[in-house]
Amino acid sequence: MRSIEWINGKVRFIDVTKLPTRLKIIETQDYLELANAIKTMKIRGAPAIGVAVAFGLALVAYHSRATNYEDFMKELNHAAHVLVNSRPTAVNASWAANRILMKITPRSNLNEVKNIIINEAINIAEEDVKINKTMSEYGASLIKDGDVIITHCNTGMLATVDIGTALGVIIRAYQQGKKIMVYVDETRPALQGARLTAWELKQAGVPFKLIVDSAAGTVMRDKGVTKVFVGADRILKDGHVINKIGTYTLSVLAKAHNIEFYVVAPTSSFDLVKNINEVIIEERDPKEVTHIKGKRIAPRNIQIYNPVFDITPPENVTAIITEKGIIYPPYSKNIQKILTSSS
Amino acid sequence: MRSIEWINGKVRFIDVTKLPTRLKIIETQDYLELANAIKTMKIRGAPAIGVAVAFGLALVAYHSRATNYEDFMKELNHAAHVLVNSRPTAVNASWAANRILMKITPRSNLNEVKNIIINEAINIAEEDVKINKTMSEYGASLIKDGDVIITHCNTGMLATVDIGTALGVIIRAYQQGKKIMVYVDETRPALQGARLTAWELKQAGVPFKLIVDSAAGTVMRDKGVTKVFVGADRILKDGHVINKIGTYTLSVLAKAHNIEFYVVAPTSSFDLVKNINEVIIEERDPKEVTHIKGKRIAPRNIQIYNPVFDITPPENVTAIITEKGIIYPPYSKNIQKILTSSS
Repeated sequence: MRSIEWINGKVRFIDVTKLPTRLKIIETQDYLELANAIKTMKIRGAPAIGVAVAFGLALVAYHSRATNYEDFMKELNHAAHVLVNSRPTAVNASWAANRILMKITPRSNLNEVKNIIINEAINIAEEDVKINKTMSEYGASLIKDGDVIITHCNTGMLATVDIGTALGVIIRAYQQGKKIMVYVDETRPALQGARLTAWELKQAGVPFKLIVDSAAGTVMRDKGVTKVFVGADRILKDGHVINKIGTYTLSVLAKAHNIEFYVVAPTSSFDLVKNINEVIIEERDPKEVTHIKGKRIAPRNIQIYNPVFDITPPENVTAIITEKGIIYPPYSKNIQKILTSSS
Repeated sequence: MRSIEWINGKVRFIDVTKLPTRLKIIETQDYLELANAIKTMKIRGAPAIGVAVAFGLALVAYHSRATNYEDFMKELNHAAHVLVNSRPTAVNASWAANRILMKITPRSNLNEVKNIIINEAINIAEEDVKINKTMSEYGASLIKDGDVIITHCNTGMLATVDIGTALGVIIRAYQQGKKIMVYVDETRPALQGARLTAWELKQAGVPFKLIVDSAAGTVMRDKGVTKVFVGADRILKDGHVINKIGTYTLSVLAKAHNIEFYVVAPTSSFDLVKNINEVIIEERDPKEVTHIKGKRIAPRNIQIYNPVFDITPPENVTAIITEKGIIYPPYSKNIQKILTSSS
C-alpha cells in the first residue's frame, strides 16, 4: 500500500484527514485538487508533498490540450506556482517542481516533453520509496533491544510514498526483531500522532502507547526513554531543523534528560541556500486550535498563536539520518560533505 | 460571581465541563451529586474540590434524618469517604474533610453538631476567597511591566471559589495596570487552558494568546517569555510540586531558557507527611485522550498512558507563593518555617 500513486493519467491518494476512523482513497485527474489536498492537509508530510507536486505537474502534462511549447510551458509554470505555494514551508514542494522543470529543454515534439515530465514524476516517487528504505536501515542500526522511543507527528508511509522517515526507522527496527517500546505524542493541533502514527504502528504491530504532548517530559524521566526520532520539513546547512511544532520542545526535554535526539530526513529536505533568519514559519488557521472535528473547544473572538513549525538548533540534535548516511556534528562541515558525496 | 456557593441547604456550582460554549449552573441538595461532579470534573481545581467536599458534608448535616449522634456520624463518615475518594490526588479534599471532622465533639444536641459542620464549610469557602486575595497580592508584586507570562491549566475562579491561585496573580497584576502579555497553553487532555483560562482572561480583559502545549518551548525562546505561573494540587515538604500533567515539561523548558517558574498555592495544598515515592499519580480514563467532545481522534484498541498529574522537582521552582508569603529555596527549610508561622 502506498499513500500516493500514479495510475495512467490519474493520481490516487489516501485522504489522511479521514484517518483513523476511515481509510478514504481519492482519485483525481485535476492538479488543482492535488494543490487543494496539500493545502487542507489531506496530503501532508514533506516527502509526500514533494511527490504530490510532481504528480500534479504530471497531470498537467498528461491532460494538457496545448499544441505548442510556449502555451504548454505557460500552463505548466502556472501549475508549478500554484502547487508549490499550497504549503510554503515544505522545501520538498519546490525541490520536486524544480527537478521536473530542469529536465525540460525546448523540443519540437511536445509529447516528448510531456513524457519526460511524467517519467520524472514517477522517478521521484520511486526514489522516495528507495531512499526511505535506505534511511530505515541506517536508522534501525542505531536502535537496540530495550530502547524506549518517543516519536512526534507522523513520519510514516502516510507522510511519504511508502515506509516513511523517522517512523520507517522505528518500524524497520521492530521488523528486525528488536524489542522496543514507542511513546507516540498526539501532536496537536492536527493530531497526526494520535490519528496517523498510532494507526500505522497498530497496523505494523509495534508496541506503543499514545500520550498527550505535554506528558513527554515526565515520560522521558520516568519511563526510561532512550531515544527520540523525528522527521524534518527542512534542514539548513548548519543543522537547524525546521519541523512540526513541538519538535523544539522535545529536543530541549531530550537534552535535559540526556536522551539521544535523531532527525530522519532525505537529502531533498536540505536547504543549503537559506539562513536561519530567512525561514518563514507558516502560521495556520486559528480554527485548528479552537476547534477539533468541528467542535469548538475555546471561547469565540480570542487570539491564537498557531505556528505549524518550529526550529531546533543543531546543538540539540544527536545525528541526522539521510539516505546517504548518518551525519554527526559538526553539522556545518559534515552536512556539506555528505550532500556533495556521490551516493 | 463564585464558582461554588452555599445557599440555605443547597449548593450551587458552575459545571465547568460546559464552558466555554455554555455557562451552566447546577443546584443540588445531594452530596452524591457533588461527589460525582468532582469525579467527572464538573468541579475541578484543588481548592474548589476542597470546598466542594466541605459543602458536601454540610449537605449531609443539613438534610440528615438521623436522630442520634452515632447514626449521624456513620452517615457523615461514609459521605466523607465517598467525597474524598472522588479524586485521589487532590490533597485539599481530605484536608477539608479532616478539618470539618476535627471540629466535631459528641454533644447532646445534634443540631449543634450539624450547625458546626455547616458553619465550618462556609468558613472554608470564605477563607479560600480571602487566601486567594492575599496570594494574588503577593504574586502580583513579582510581576513587572512588560512581563510575558505562560500559564498552564486553569487556576482561576473556576478552580477555586473566587479570584484563583496562579491566574488570580496574573489578573491582579493586570488590574494594577501592569502591561503584561499571557500565553495560555490549552492543557490536553481536558483542555482547561483553552476552555476555562481563555474564558476567564477574556472576561477580565487581559491580553492573551492561546497556544498548543507543545508550542511552549518555541514561545519561550522567541516571544520573550519572562515568567511561568502555575498552581499546585499538592506540594511536599521538600518542595516537590504535584500538578497537572505538563507542569514538569514546562518547568524543564523554563529552566533551559532561564525563565522564572512560580507555583501559587495555599498552605492547605502542602502535604508535610508523604514522601515523593508515596505519591500516587492518578491515571484517568483513556477516553480523555482518544476522544474530544465525543469524537474519536485515535484508533480503537490501542494503549494510552494518561497520567493526570506530574511531579516537578524543587530545583525547577523559583519560588512558591502562599497566603503566608513567598517561599524561596531552600524549600526543605523554608516550607516548614512559613507553614508553622502564625499568619
